[in-house]
Amino acid sequence: MRERIRITYEFALAEGESPEAGARRIALEQTVELPDGCYPDRIEEAVVARVEELEALAENRCRAALSFAPALVGNEVPQLLNVLFGMVSLLPATRVVEFELPDGLLRRYGGPRFGIEGIRAACTNAAGRPLLCTSAKPVGLSAAELAAICGALARGGIDVVKDDHGVADQATAPFAERVGRCSEAVQRANEASGGSTLYFPNVTSPVTELFDRVATAKAAGCRGVLVSPFATGLDTLRWLAENSGLIVLVHPTFSGALYHADHGVSLPVLGRLLRVLGSDGVTYVNAGGRFPVTEQECHAVNDSLRGPLGSLRPALPVPGGGMDVDRAAYWTERYGVDTMFLIGSSLYAQGDLEVASRRLVDAVTGAAG
Amino acid sequence: MRERIRITYEFALAEGESPEAGARRIALEQTVELPDGCYPDRIEEAVVARVEELEALAENRCRAALSFAPALVGNEVPQLLNVLFGMVSLLPATRVVEFELPDGLLRRYGGPRFGIEGIRAACTNAAGRPLLCTSAKPVGLSAAELAAICGALARGGIDVVKDDHGVADQATAPFAERVGRCSEAVQRANEASGGSTLYFPNVTSPVTELFDRVATAKAAGCRGVLVSPFATGLDTLRWLAENSGLIVLVHPTFSGALYHADHGVSLPVLGRLLRVLGSDGVTYVNAGGRFPVTEQECHAVNDSLRGPLGSLRPALPVPGGGMDVDRAAYWTERYGVDTMFLIGSSLYAQGDLEVASRRLVDAVTGAAG
Repeated sequence: MRERIRITYEFALAEGESPEAGARRIALEQTVELPDGCYPDRIEEAVVARVEELEALAENRCRAALSFAPALVGNEVPQLLNVLFGMVSLLPATRVVEFELPDGLLRRYGGPRFGIEGIRAACTNAAGRPLLCTSAKPVGLSAAELAAICGALARGGIDVVKDDHGVADQATAPFAERVGRCSEAVQRANEASGGSTLYFPNVTSPVTELFDRVATAKAAGCRGVLVSPFATGLDTLRWLAENSGLIVLVHPTFSGALYHADHGVSLPVLGRLLRVLGSDGVTYVNAGGRFPVTEQECHAVNDSLRGPLGSLRPALPVPGGGMDVDRAAYWTERYGVDTMFLIGSSLYAQGDLEVASRRLVDAVTGAAG
Repeated sequence: MRERIRITYEFALAEGESPEAGARRIALEQTVELPDGCYPDRIEEAVVARVEELEALAENRCRAALSFAPALVGNEVPQLLNVLFGMVSLLPATRVVEFELPDGLLRRYGGPRFGIEGIRAACTNAAGRPLLCTSAKPVGLSAAELAAICGALARGGIDVVKDDHGVADQATAPFAERVGRCSEAVQRANEASGGSTLYFPNVTSPVTELFDRVATAKAAGCRGVLVSPFATGLDTLRWLAENSGLIVLVHPTFSGALYHADHGVSLPVLGRLLRVLGSDGVTYVNAGGRFPVTEQECHAVNDSLRGPLGSLRPALPVPGGGMDVDRAAYWTERYGVDTMFLIGSSLYAQGDLEVASRRLVDAVTGAAG
């Protein structure tokens, strides 16, 4: 049983520095932030990260697996981020490539409260096929206009209709009015067609508003919400999972600031972090769309969300972009049915959202059959 | 008077793409996130970002100044981040290099509530010279041990003694006990020596704890706090400035994830953002220390913190690293007296913190004389 936090970094060695010295430098930087000998001996044992594995890489780089005492985190998400990639984020060409938590911390954060199974249980019409998700947009439309879009998408059979991440509480469609109208439009469509579409409002908001927005969403009958945790702070995700009682779908806006070829936090590590903190579904930009992501990276993200992780539930991968009627069979075969495809532009470009949605649902159902 | 948000991006053009087409692509990505023609005409005028300036750069890159309607942000910090670097963060080699807000939004966020003048008014012994700041560390020490360090630093005349950013609410030094003991140690030192040292506890915490930690800090007589907004979420910084009544000193842990040579948010833009949201002092890693930052970048950060910015107060630059007794004159001459130097390792390495602190205060006083 894992008892320490384990984080693997790839980083640039200083001029003439050995891998051992480099790894020790990182271990100090991420914990005591003091040179050797400037702290009591017992701190070495209790606090300083241990170098568990070490590998020299090409171009004067190095990969080091370090382990940290869980007590450093003390259960708090900001401290977890600090241990994960705090001061070393400021060093040159330094990357987090692996990240494992002890069972105690996994249980503490708890992971997805619904996960794939919980989302499927709510979307009764999607059995045996990948799920489909579409945003009501763009920002600037009125609440009534957005509700009309939600209704059309629901009548067309889209499983999860969500607010666009750019739609928050702007004057054009204030949160409470929008959530009421959109939720009602989706419920009405479900009643008329026997559908099981869910509407997830965007609760991304100032720290003092989040609680009210969740309460408003619940009062309107919503089963889940959308949040952009890289804009709100990752601890709000933990809070939502622990306290909202709602399915939590995560949007990746701003997250691209965090990863780069040789610096930052790798995509699968971000995916795992989001799952640990309680994401039921994780939206990411898919390969083959307008973003520079490889299919291999997407598979790694899917694995981090769906693969074994202590006692935590699997989270639903939600690749966005690159998906349309013609590609339904391809992506279903690549990613499997326990995936939710986020489709936007290719539906909007067809004009009639209801008809376009129904065609896509049929294509995905056929592809999974 | 500026009426729109203006953000300048540098980004990679797609194969064969003109700068005009690239800038239009970014403008759509950051607002409607839909292709041309998939939204009503009035949305083009009201919502889509406008391309204000355009310049082709070497290596198939481009610089484009876009302007956005303030209504897109609706006053909320997460939406500001979304507009600043939301979806485009996920595009290849894309960087925010300039960022200007209309007066209305500047006033709404309010900037530093104390700023340089307010911090100086509290540090009465530091008139006419740069201020000095040191962290009590490392994490793992008890509250009593940390308080003893705070007392020694205060007797030595350090102006601001702060918690280490890695010290939060761990079992070894629980927040309330630590803040009480450290604050008392500093007050006692001030009374004995006629000093004016301030103690800033680290209130970086889960979203639901922040309010209590601030209350505890105030009850203990603290005049300011430390926060790591890249770990808590930037909106907590806005909340602290608006509601705490305390001097807010910002720590950069995790922020290095956000900037790179060709991607992310540039250091001066981050500095400006932190000032707008209410940082009274901004800690950053100094040139000449153990981090890869140039002196030119540090000057740009200093300018973003101290230069004119609507009606907002100047914020105090707090360069960390690379500073010791021998370098006091150099850095004072380079950055000016309205700077606070964060010094850690070079004091701790000398063993007797009180003596080492006094020597440094004398050196800085001499350098400014």
